[in-house]
Amino acid sequence: MVVLDLSQVYNGPYCTMLLGQLGAEIIKIEPFGGEPVRWRVVGEQQTAAFDLLNGGKKSVRLNLKHPRGRELFLSLVERADVVVENFSPGTLQRLSLGYDVLARANAGIILATGRGYGAGTPQSEQRAMDLTIQAVTGVMATTGQPDQPPTKAGPAVADFFGGTHLLAAITTALYQRTVTGNGQHVEVAMQDAVVPSLTSSIAGYLDSGGALPERTGNKHSGLAVCPYNVYPAADGWVAILCMNDGHWQSLCRLMGRGELAEDPAFGSPPARVAQMDKLDEIVAAWTAEVTRQELVRRLQDVGVPCSPVLSLSDVMTGPLVGADGMIRPVLDPTGRTTYALGNPLRLPASPPVPATAAPALGAHTDEVLREQLGIAAAELERLRHDNVV
Amino acid sequence: MVVLDLSQVYNGPYCTMLLGQLGAEIIKIEPFGGEPVRWRVVGEQQTAAFDLLNGGKKSVRLNLKHPRGRELFLSLVERADVVVENFSPGTLQRLSLGYDVLARANAGIILATGRGYGAGTPQSEQRAMDLTIQAVTGVMATTGQPDQPPTKAGPAVADFFGGTHLLAAITTALYQRTVTGNGQHVEVAMQDAVVPSLTSSIAGYLDSGGALPERTGNKHSGLAVCPYNVYPAADGWVAILCMNDGHWQSLCRLMGRGELAEDPAFGSPPARVAQMDKLDEIVAAWTAEVTRQELVRRLQDVGVPCSPVLSLSDVMTGPLVGADGMIRPVLDPTGRTTYALGNPLRLPASPPVPATAAPALGAHTDEVLREQLGIAAAELERLRHDNVV
Repeated sequence: MVVLDLSQVYNGPYCTMLLGQLGAEIIKIEPFGGEPVRWRVVGEQQTAAFDLLNGGKKSVRLNLKHPRGRELFLSLVERADVVVENFSPGTLQRLSLGYDVLARANAGIILATGRGYGAGTPQSEQRAMDLTIQAVTGVMATTGQPDQPPTKAGPAVADFFGGTHLLAAITTALYQRTVTGNGQHVEVAMQDAVVPSLTSSIAGYLDSGGALPERTGNKHSGLAVCPYNVYPAADGWVAILCMNDGHWQSLCRLMGRGELAEDPAFGSPPARVAQMDKLDEIVAAWTAEVTRQELVRRLQDVGVPCSPVLSLSDVMTGPLVGADGMIRPVLDPTGRTTYALGNPLRLPASPPVPATAAPALGAHTDEVLREQLGIAAAELERLRHDNVV
Repeated sequence: MVVLDLSQVYNGPYCTMLLGQLGAEIIKIEPFGGEPVRWRVVGEQQTAAFDLLNGGKKSVRLNLKHPRGRELFLSLVERADVVVENFSPGTLQRLSLGYDVLARANAGIILATGRGYGAGTPQSEQRAMDLTIQAVTGVMATTGQPDQPPTKAGPAVADFFGGTHLLAAITTALYQRTVTGNGQHVEVAMQDAVVPSLTSSIAGYLDSGGALPERTGNKHSGLAVCPYNVYPAADGWVAILCMNDGHWQSLCRLMGRGELAEDPAFGSPPARVAQMDKLDEIVAAWTAEVTRQELVRRLQDVGVPCSPVLSLSDVMTGPLVGADGMIRPVLDPTGRTTYALGNPLRLPASPPVPATAAPALGAHTDEVLREQLGIAAAELERLRHDNVV
């Protein structure tokens, strides 16, 4: 399985990173300056974001605006299964590399496009970034305290929901190709991919006729579950939620407040929701005296869903970082330790791919052109001289 | 393509909703009380969350704890392609319906498990919910203002990243089955699926040796891009970001501050990041006088990425809601208008499935058992009498 990866920043590169983890060969085609995240620096140093998302890929430097570069790309398309791109709208057409052109080169090719807005929508030609999609979809409106301004979600939800859905679209198209024999042009708009994740808020809006606050701090986004909040612990914060009456009764007894467990005034989710502030106060008064670890131990003993709220530093010094974790230390060719993301998809038929460092710009140009297209050293020299590669 | 859907709440049901949108027949197997979101109510009314995620599915009420119920389920497995579940750890084994049992009934079956934590991790046996996964992965730590407590992201990122990755795992396994002839047991842990979306924060942590604030309000999560923020407008908020020097120069000229565009003190991303507060102030002073719509018009004219920050009410009264939108009005059998989610995956080979309402509990029990297993009316009567269906 060969994937030609024209994509950039987070959305497409996450999608192709996962295809690589599933066993595909990822050929990252980059312009002469490298893709944008290569030149995103903090101080003097390239940000680790590029390393995290591009482990295990091959980098080919190729000038698609040069007729010979375009020709080489189409020759690669003849031998490839998938092309992934998330350029701003219209870019691929301007390069004369739209789906119709690719399909003439290879009827089985799957072109996967990550977009900001859906084709055919009013904003379809607008460029979009994670921040702007968070702004227009209600992610910001639904994040933060009700009395504070709209707040960005820390995770790049638009980029990564977009990229993950795009992966599913590609694997679906690969499956369909086994039946039809043909490829297709699949598309995922970040705007569309984010909306379902707002189900609690959307349902809260629909159920209340728009009367609920649009953001609810750390309470349930639809104000449909209580207790459900982040509560103070003696040494930080702890998340606790009662999905059903059983959880609530167990929590009451654990707090030494068995009388509340029996009280019909709190005997159903709507009854508890109606007294949310009062119940949150009762729980918070209990949690504030105890450490996170001890609270979690006691709550889990009685089956109440909970967990400590970890700091970023807790996460980065915990078990998620390591050879089998989601954040994997790898040595780059210079001996520097960098980090590559692991694979959330566990498939016995796709055994783990060893983590390797992100490639230097163009590190595999010669190798790929030689092996895929049989281009000889003298020709490579000429291509380099002509600013094609 | 037949999918047996044992899943509940958001994670699994979103995954199977997408499979249904791609053309699969989704048979939702529910316990006698219905799955948990059926009984989540606001006031007296079932929340719209169930409707949003279960449109187009068939509901079969089936008691898997009854030997005859388990037997019927295994007969359905013989004719199915995929089984999806996100029970708490160990539940399927306690029902004697682990992968080994399913695979004996049908070697081609794909069992897809949505988990909280990865198999083999210290927390693998813990139950997890969206809130608790947000707490332990750093989503909360990276969301909100630096001087405020950790904050939940409004979207249910754990559930929906989990569900989307699970979809990709299933479609990958379907593709692999065309080669191997065999199914497999695929798994996705919400914890793993969320981590990549924190790339900016993780990179910021790695690049700074942990010196950056773990949450940055509406600034870039890795403090690697500036300007990048939500700025006040005369009538709300607007998101603006400058991904490169060109965007910055265009913004300066638009603000009537051409001298800043030429100033080497702001001539690179690190230089601008070093003076982030000052630049944010300059931009905010300019935006505060102008409406969202007018700001967006002017910024887009000069190619600077931006968008209005929409309220939830803006979203719910905008073009995302409608017959072709992501939030689709549908009539249920009683004539009530409910809403079903649309499909972010656009594949020409999977033409749009008309939106239909979520099923009543057990609405298709008889139909499915009759059509799939040839069970006659008298036998259905007996099964009902014996509390099997």
